[in-house]
Amino acid sequence: MSMKLTVLGSSSAIPTKERNLSAQLLEIAGHSLLLDCGEGTQLQLNKFKKKQSQIRYILISHLHGDHYFGLVGLVSTMHMLGREKDLHIYSPNGLEEIIRLQFAASNTRLSFKLVFHIINTKKSILLFEENAYQLFTFPLKHSVETYGFKIQEKTGQRNIRKEFIQNRDIHHKWFPRIKDGEDYIDSKGRIYPNNTITTSPQNPSSFAYMTDTAYLPERANDIVGVSLLYHEATFLSSDLEKAIARNHSTAKQAAKIAREAQVQRLLIGHFSTRYEDLSLFLDEVKAVFKNTILAEDGMEISI
Amino acid sequence: MSMKLTVLGSSSAIPTKERNLSAQLLEIAGHSLLLDCGEGTQLQLNKFKKKQSQIRYILISHLHGDHYFGLVGLVSTMHMLGREKDLHIYSPNGLEEIIRLQFAASNTRLSFKLVFHIINTKKSILLFEENAYQLFTFPLKHSVETYGFKIQEKTGQRNIRKEFIQNRDIHHKWFPRIKDGEDYIDSKGRIYPNNTITTSPQNPSSFAYMTDTAYLPERANDIVGVSLLYHEATFLSSDLEKAIARNHSTAKQAAKIAREAQVQRLLIGHFSTRYEDLSLFLDEVKAVFKNTILAEDGMEISI
Repeated sequence: MSMKLTVLGSSSAIPTKERNLSAQLLEIAGHSLLLDCGEGTQLQLNKFKKKQSQIRYILISHLHGDHYFGLVGLVSTMHMLGREKDLHIYSPNGLEEIIRLQFAASNTRLSFKLVFHIINTKKSILLFEENAYQLFTFPLKHSVETYGFKIQEKTGQRNIRKEFIQNRDIHHKWFPRIKDGEDYIDSKGRIYPNNTITTSPQNPSSFAYMTDTAYLPERANDIVGVSLLYHEATFLSSDLEKAIARNHSTAKQAAKIAREAQVQRLLIGHFSTRYEDLSLFLDEVKAVFKNTILAEDGMEISI
Repeated sequence: MSMKLTVLGSSSAIPTKERNLSAQLLEIAGHSLLLDCGEGTQLQLNKFKKKQSQIRYILISHLHGDHYFGLVGLVSTMHMLGREKDLHIYSPNGLEEIIRLQFAASNTRLSFKLVFHIINTKKSILLFEENAYQLFTFPLKHSVETYGFKIQEKTGQRNIRKEFIQNRDIHHKWFPRIKDGEDYIDSKGRIYPNNTITTSPQNPSSFAYMTDTAYLPERANDIVGVSLLYHEATFLSSDLEKAIARNHSTAKQAAKIAREAQVQRLLIGHFSTRYEDLSLFLDEVKAVFKNTILAEDGMEISI
């Protein structure tokens, strides 16, 4: 099993020609999750050939416009294209009223069920789970109520060794039991210990998403060892005072969290438009945490 | 004097890779008016190198999302870039609540004054005027309250002939009076009739904007002889029933209005995404009204 992340927007509050507003698409277990939905997200989905019809969950980190102004348009397009599947939206309180008011103004009755879930927690909690993964959320530190997310694949089933199946007449009822870790007992009562006839499942992947937030080292515990961490890096350290005043992070601070949490890879984005040369971000981060990627719109990352 | 129109979006309800949602920018007398503001309009302004800081008025035809979902993001960017000038927004009732609710959710206090004006009329009325032009609005026929707009340049001042000024010592107080049409009387009491010492002002231009609307021939009176008429053409005549059912127009109907109103040029847009070959629209229109342009995103038209 694996996940695929597509960066749809990597600018901070103001879009540029190269970088749209915050949004990332995570493909996992046959469907998609959308993380934030800045204005123009539906256009980015078109551009990067991603199907909006595959989106099952939308997670909105906070109610600053650059993270959700594209939601009403995306939902509107889903409706016009005749979507029937439920759509679940998770966000801090206040979003449902905003979206419903706009559909009320046009007398629109959606073709599908839009289910709003309010996030309200002071610690990391399980938000929902599917067969293949769990989704956790935890509070961040910003000028408005803001949450981070972690998607954790569940441990898969064990794989039965091919050489064991070959030339053996095993009843089909045994396969799920062996995959679940049971020893196999043949018709003569002979026991085959599970660890001799199977191999371990693939390591489950995980992804954490942290934007917008001030430097918050105590959150490292909630994302320990994730395969990929996306962390905002709005400013360079030379603008540390601005970062503190606006409850954002510097590139160096993002790197420190990644190091502290011993994540495998770090992805940084949400760059302020004040910087022309973004390679400075990479220089700053890599001095602290080497395995780092600079987000670009359209970038795809296998996790 | 003249106007310049830039098409920012020419698709109907759903954006495509080539065509964004409804928005047009009209540059006149040193500032800009924005007509409708679908999602992604601020990105289109960037793309086509148009300054959002020059926008003084925003006119929203109706509260269907494809005509205004980009407004809150545009206003938000103006705020973040420190705009100080008032911004006037004209629309049917309901827009102010939608916009204010979103800024309340982020505790945003705008850096400039946002002034909402509610349009509510059953006939063509003067909405506002500037030194150089007047702006009229009139009701259209759609599934929600919808208005069209007409921008009419005022007749300019007369131009004083150069050969009259040369070698004559005319007191400066006379210039505005002559430009306004007064005869000149020299220090010896000799009268120079105005029409012998001036030339006529340039013909004033005018532009009308009609979207979204069903076929509405009675509106032709309100737009007689305009230099350029933008009229929606969502469907081809082969889909006349759909056009009627959804309160939209066909290309042929747009052409009939143009002919009836004896406009100089017609611009059609708001094409349904169901059609792949848009040249069919032009064929259909030109059979009725020859001087027609098919809207494309980024197109600039001098009026």
